[in-house]
Amino acid sequence: MASSSAPIKVGIVGGTGYTGVELLRLLSAHPNAKLHAITSRKEEGMPVADMFPNLRGHVDLAFSAPENAALSECDVVFFATPHGVAMGQARALIEAGVKVIDLAADFRLQDTAVFEKWYKMAHACPDVLKDSVYGLVELNREKVAGAQVIGNPGCYPTTVILGLTPLLEKGLVKLDNIIADCKSGVSGAGRKTEVGSLFSEASDNFKAYAVSGHRHHPEIVEQLGKIAGQPVDLTFVPHLVPMIRGMLSTIYVKIKPEALDTDFQALYEQRYQNEAFIDVMPAGSLPETRSVRASNQLRIALHRPGNGDTLIVVVVQDNLVKGAAGQAVQNMNVLFGLAEQTGLNQVAILP
Amino acid sequence: MASSSAPIKVGIVGGTGYTGVELLRLLSAHPNAKLHAITSRKEEGMPVADMFPNLRGHVDLAFSAPENAALSECDVVFFATPHGVAMGQARALIEAGVKVIDLAADFRLQDTAVFEKWYKMAHACPDVLKDSVYGLVELNREKVAGAQVIGNPGCYPTTVILGLTPLLEKGLVKLDNIIADCKSGVSGAGRKTEVGSLFSEASDNFKAYAVSGHRHHPEIVEQLGKIAGQPVDLTFVPHLVPMIRGMLSTIYVKIKPEALDTDFQALYEQRYQNEAFIDVMPAGSLPETRSVRASNQLRIALHRPGNGDTLIVVVVQDNLVKGAAGQAVQNMNVLFGLAEQTGLNQVAILP
Amino acid sequence: MASSSAPIKVGIVGGTGYTGVELLRLLSAHPNAKLHAITSRKEEGMPVADMFPNLRGHVDLAFSAPENAALSECDVVFFATPHGVAMGQARALIEAGVKVIDLAADFRLQDTAVFEKWYKMAHACPDVLKDSVYGLVELNREKVAGAQVIGNPGCYPTTVILGLTPLLEKGLVKLDNIIADCKSGVSGAGRKTEVGSLFSEASDNFKAYAVSGHRHHPEIVEQLGKIAGQPVDLTFVPHLVPMIRGMLSTIYVKIKPEALDTDFQALYEQRYQNEAFIDVMPAGSLPETRSVRASNQLRIALHRPGNGDTLIVVVVQDNLVKGAAGQAVQNMNVLFGLAEQTGLNQVAILP
Amino acid sequence: MASSSAPIKVGIVGGTGYTGVELLRLLSAHPNAKLHAITSRKEEGMPVADMFPNLRGHVDLAFSAPENAALSECDVVFFATPHGVAMGQARALIEAGVKVIDLAADFRLQDTAVFEKWYKMAHACPDVLKDSVYGLVELNREKVAGAQVIGNPGCYPTTVILGLTPLLEKGLVKLDNIIADCKSGVSGAGRKTEVGSLFSEASDNFKAYAVSGHRHHPEIVEQLGKIAGQPVDLTFVPHLVPMIRGMLSTIYVKIKPEALDTDFQALYEQRYQNEAFIDVMPAGSLPETRSVRASNQLRIALHRPGNGDTLIVVVVQDNLVKGAAGQAVQNMNVLFGLAEQTGLNQVAILP
Repeated sequence: MASSSAPIKVGIVGGTGYTGVELLRLLSAHPNAKLHAITSRKEEGMPVADMFPNLRGHVDLAFSAPENAALSECDVVFFATPHGVAMGQARALIEAGVKVIDLAADFRLQDTAVFEKWYKMAHACPDVLKDSVYGLVELNREKVAGAQVIGNPGCYPTTVILGLTPLLEKGLVKLDNIIADCKSGVSGAGRKTEVGSLFSEASDNFKAYAVSGHRHHPEIVEQLGKIAGQPVDLTFVPHLVPMIRGMLSTIYVKIKPEALDTDFQALYEQRYQNEAFIDVMPAGSLPETRSVRASNQLRIALHRPGNGDTLIVVVVQDNLVKGAAGQAVQNMNVLFGLAEQTGLNQVAILP
Repeated sequence: MASSSAPIKVGIVGGTGYTGVELLRLLSAHPNAKLHAITSRKEEGMPVADMFPNLRGHVDLAFSAPENAALSECDVVFFATPHGVAMGQARALIEAGVKVIDLAADFRLQDTAVFEKWYKMAHACPDVLKDSVYGLVELNREKVAGAQVIGNPGCYPTTVILGLTPLLEKGLVKLDNIIADCKSGVSGAGRKTEVGSLFSEASDNFKAYAVSGHRHHPEIVEQLGKIAGQPVDLTFVPHLVPMIRGMLSTIYVKIKPEALDTDFQALYEQRYQNEAFIDVMPAGSLPETRSVRASNQLRIALHRPGNGDTLIVVVVQDNLVKGAAGQAVQNMNVLFGLAEQTGLNQVAILP
Repeated sequence: MASSSAPIKVGIVGGTGYTGVELLRLLSAHPNAKLHAITSRKEEGMPVADMFPNLRGHVDLAFSAPENAALSECDVVFFATPHGVAMGQARALIEAGVKVIDLAADFRLQDTAVFEKWYKMAHACPDVLKDSVYGLVELNREKVAGAQVIGNPGCYPTTVILGLTPLLEKGLVKLDNIIADCKSGVSGAGRKTEVGSLFSEASDNFKAYAVSGHRHHPEIVEQLGKIAGQPVDLTFVPHLVPMIRGMLSTIYVKIKPEALDTDFQALYEQRYQNEAFIDVMPAGSLPETRSVRASNQLRIALHRPGNGDTLIVVVVQDNLVKGAAGQAVQNMNVLFGLAEQTGLNQVAILP
Repeated sequence: MASSSAPIKVGIVGGTGYTGVELLRLLSAHPNAKLHAITSRKEEGMPVADMFPNLRGHVDLAFSAPENAALSECDVVFFATPHGVAMGQARALIEAGVKVIDLAADFRLQDTAVFEKWYKMAHACPDVLKDSVYGLVELNREKVAGAQVIGNPGCYPTTVILGLTPLLEKGLVKLDNIIADCKSGVSGAGRKTEVGSLFSEASDNFKAYAVSGHRHHPEIVEQLGKIAGQPVDLTFVPHLVPMIRGMLSTIYVKIKPEALDTDFQALYEQRYQNEAFIDVMPAGSLPETRSVRASNQLRIALHRPGNGDTLIVVVVQDNLVKGAAGQAVQNMNVLFGLAEQTGLNQVAILP
C-alpha cells in the first residue's frame, strides 16, 4: 500500500476512449496519484493532450505501446479497453504486485457461462475472476479494500443496483415484477465510429435499443440475486438520450402487501447516510442528470403515486463518472486506504 | 359539409404557440382548406409570417383581435389556446354553424368533476361537452364524422391509448399493472417562457417530471376504461428529452395467463391494417422518434423478452403532429368527408 | 423530354447517404417523378425503407447493385456518391440518352488542374466536363435547361455565390477583401463514420475547420470570378455547428467609394424578384437556419453597420435541400421543363 | 488584505443567474475563500442548493434579502446582477472597506456618455468609475492588485481583446479593417425567460443577432483603442450557437505591408508565455469550445491562408468561466495576493 507521502503510480491501458480521457481528467488532478504510463498501440508516440485538448497543460504523457509501457512498475493499472483485454493481462500484473481495476466487463460476472454467452468469448482466467471483487464500493467496501483485481461495475448496473439495494436487503418488494426503464447519454456508446452514434443520427432523436437483451442485464440480475438471496426477475429496457453525459433510471417495483406501511424515504436515508456519493433527495424530488454532470454523485428520489403498491425509484448519475471512471477512482481510493472522496469532490457543472 | 369544390374556411384562435404554427404549416399546404382568420389579442396586426418566418411566402394573414376575427364565417375553428378558452366560445360558434376542434383539454374529459380537479376551473358548458367527441379517429371515426365539437387528444394519451387498444379490446392483459414510461421533446411544453424550458436548462439534460400526477393521466385512464369496459390502473411517468419534437412511450403490461399463447404481432397488424397513420412495425423493431419527425405517422413495435408474461409496447409519434396539430387536421378531414390523408402525407424529416 | 403525362423515370446512384435519403424524400412526393432504381453495392437487396424508416410507406424500392440497376432506362440519374464516381459513369449514361445530375464535385470545377489539386484524382472525362453546366439555376437557368450533365453546386458555394452575385454583377465592392465566415450543421459531413462527426464530439461544441483550405474555396472563387469578370480574392472559413441541418454564411465586403450611395436592399430585391427560392428579407432582418429547415428556400438579409463601407450579407439555407438534394431536384425540374417549384414547395419545419 | 490563514469572506449579490451559480461552483471549492452571504430579494430564505441542485452537499447557504445580507462584513462582494445594480451599492461597500467585483457592465466603460447611450441609464457614481479597474488581468495585473472596484470584462470583449492585443501593441495590423465574427453558447443570454432562449427556439438553429449594434461593441473598441493608442474601427457580429457553454471568435485582420514578415506565432507565444490561462496553440491548430468547457482557459490559434495579408485569429473560452465567473475569481485572486490559479485549475470537461 502506498504511504501517504509517495503518490500512487498509475497506469492506464487503452486511454483513447471516453472512460480513458475521463480517468485522465480525474487522475491528473488527484492529490495522491501520479500518472506513470498510458498505452495505445495505435497512437503510440502521440501526446495524450493532442488527442484530448482539454488535457493541455495538465497531462504531459504520450501514448506508449502496450509492450513498452512500464505497467509493471505501477501500483495500479486501469483497463479502459474493450471487453477481453484485461483478463489477458491481469495475471502477469498481479504477479508483479500490481492492482488491477478493469472498467470493462471481464471481472463483473462471476458466472463464466453467463460471461461467455453474452460476450462471445471464453474467460481467460476464471481463477483470477473468482478472487476478483465487484467494485461497487457501497456494497463491497471491505472486499474492495483487500482486492487484487476489481471489476468496475457497468453504468446501468450502478444505478439499478444502488436504486434497489435498500428494498432487496429488507425483502420489501416482489422479486418477479421489477422494471428498470433506463436512459443514457450517447457517450455510453464510447468513442467508436458507428453510424448510430453520429451526431446527425442521435441528435434530436430518442429511441429504445437492445430491448431483446443487453449485456448489463445479466450483471444486474447476478448482483440483485446476491442481495436478495434469491433469483430476481428483471425487465430492463435501455434508451438513448440526445445528450453527451448522464443516465437516469426509472425503476418500478411492487411493494409486498406486508410492507405497505414502510417508510421508504427513511429506509433509503438511513441505508445511505454514510455514503459520500449517494444523495437520497427529499421525498418528491425530481433529480436531473445535469445535477451530477461531471461529478461522482449519484442521486436517488422516491415516488409512490397515490400511496399505492407501486414504488418508483428514480436514479441519476454521470455515466462516465460514477458510472465508469469516477467509480474506478473511488475503488482506487479504497484500495490504497485513502479517504474515499479524495480527488472526487468536484461540483457538478450546471448549466 | 363543404362541397368538394369550395375549400373549407378555417379559423384558428390563438395561433402564437407551437400547435398554432404547426396548424398553419399543415393547413397552408392543405389542398381543401383555406385559412380565413387567425386571432391573437396580443399580436393584433402582426403578420403571422413575422412571428414564424418559416411561413414567409406561404401565409399572408395577420393576427386579428378575437372580437374582430371573422370566426363565425368559418366552416371550422381550431382552438390552439390554453385550457379554458374553447369552452367559453364553443356555444356561440356552434350556433353559427361552425365546427369546433379544440387542441386544449376542454373537451377531452367527459367527467367534469375530474376536469375541475385537474384543471382548477369549472367547466363552462357541460352540455356541449356531453355532445362532443374525443377526436381519436382510429377509435371514434364515425362519431368524429358527425361531431359539432371535437376534443383533440393530448399527446401522451394518443400514444398510450393507441398502444394499448388492441390488448384492452380483447382483454388480454391485467388491468391493475400497466406502466407507461413516456418521454417527450421540449416543444410539448409549448412556447411559454418558463425557466425549465430554456435551452440552458433543458439541453444536455434528462429528467422525469410530474411524477406525482400529470393532467394526461385522467384522460388516459378515462379512455382506457371505456375500451376495457372496466377501470384501469395506470402508472404514468413522463420525462423530458433534450430534443424539440418527438415522443416515445414504453408501455409495460402483464399478459393474463390464459392469453400467453396470443400472437400479439398479428393482433396489432390486424387491428390497425386499415389505419393510414399507424404503422405496426415488424416484430423486434426499434422505432425512433425521428422516423416520424414532422409527419402524422405513429409507429408501434412489440417486444416480449424471453417470451415471458411481460409485453413491451413501444410507440413513437411527433408530439406536434399526430400528438396535436396533425391529428386535429385528421379530425377536420373526417369531419368534412375528405380522404383522411389529405394534406397529411408528408415524409418524415430524416436526418 | 418527358411529356407532361409520363412521369420522369429517376435513378439514384449511391442512395445510402444523407443527400440520398433527402433525394428520396423529395422525389417520392414529386408529382412528376417516379423512382425507378436506386443503387448501393454494399446494401444490395435491402429495402430502402429498412435503412431510412422515415420512408416506410413512401418508398418501396430496394437497393440494387450498380451493374444490375436499370439506370440506362431512366430519364435522369442523380449521383449521390463520393467524388469521382459520376465522372466514371457519365459518358455511358449520356450515350444512352440519360441526363446526369451529380451532387458530388465531379462537374463543379471547369479547371481540371484545380480539380486534380483539390480532389487528388485526375478527371476522367474532361470533354464531358466541358459541356456540363454548373447547376445554380438562378445564374444559369437557360444552360441548365439544355444540359446533358449538371454539376450540382456545393453547399457553401450556393450561399456565398448567391449572397454576392448582385454586388459582383454591378461591380460595387472591392474584390480583394471578401470574407465569408460560414457555419454548417453536422449533416454536411455526411453519414460517414468519422470520430469528429460523433454526437459526443460534435454536440455542445463549436469549432472552425479546414481553415488552411477547403474544397469549396476554389469552386466559389471560380464562379465569383466568372460573375465579376476578373479574379476574386476570398477568405473562407467554415465552422461546424452542433445542429443537424442548416447553414448560415456571414459575408463581409468593402463597398467601393463610388458605390457608397447604392441602395443595396433595392438592388437585391430587384435582382431576385422572380426567384421562387430566394427570399430577400426586409432590411435589418436576422435570418435563422430553422426558418428554412427541410425546405428549398434560401434567405438573404443585408446589414450595413453605421452606414459605413462594410456591407454584411447574411445567407441561410438548409444544406441538404437548397445546398444539395433540393437544388438537384430544382435542376431536374428545369431540365424537364417543369415549373421550378414542382415538388419543392414545402413549408420549413419550425420549431 | 486577507492573511494566508484567514479565508476571504465573500458575498454575492444576485446569485440566481448563471454567472451566480458558476461563482458558487468555483468559490465553494476555492481553498482560500469562504461564502459568507448571497442575496436575492425574490428567493429570500430558499437554500441555494434547492435552486441549483448541483450545489447539494457543497453550499449550505440560503438566499438572504439584500438589506439583511452581511455584505459589509465581507472582504469582497461580487455583483452577479443586471446592469445598474452594482453602481448603486458600490460606494457604501467601498466605505465599509469591501472590495467590489462587478460582473455586469457598470464599471466596464470609462466613458459615461457611451455607457448612457448603450445602457439607457445615467451612471450613478462616475467618480467611483474613474478609480475602477477593467479587470482583464492579462492587461492590467498591477492595477487590479490595487483596485477597490473592478469591472469584470464582458464575454465577447475578453476573446476579442486578448485575441488582438499582441498585434495592436506592436502596431502590426490595419486599424480600419478588423472583423470579429463571434459565436456564443446560449447561456450567454442568462437565465432570463425570453422566447429566443427557449430550447425549442434555440436548439437545432443558428443565427446572427444584434448585427446593428451590441453593447459589447463600445467596450471592445474602448479597450482596443487604449492598447493601440488610437481609435480602432471594428465590425462585430455576434451569433448564437445551439450549445450551453462556449464562445469562439474568428477575428480577421489585415497585416500592414511593412509587417508581412512578422512571425506571428512567435509573437503570440512570447506575449502570453507567462499567462496561466492563455494557451497559444501550435500553428494551424483548430481550437474547440469543448476543450475549455467549465475551465478558465482561453485558447488562441493563428491562421494565415496562403501566407497572404489576412491573419485569422481564432479564440475560444467558456463564456461563463473565463468570460465571466472564472475571470472574476481570477481578479479576486490577484486582488488578495493569491496565486492566480488558486481554485481555477480545473481540467475542462470533454466529452
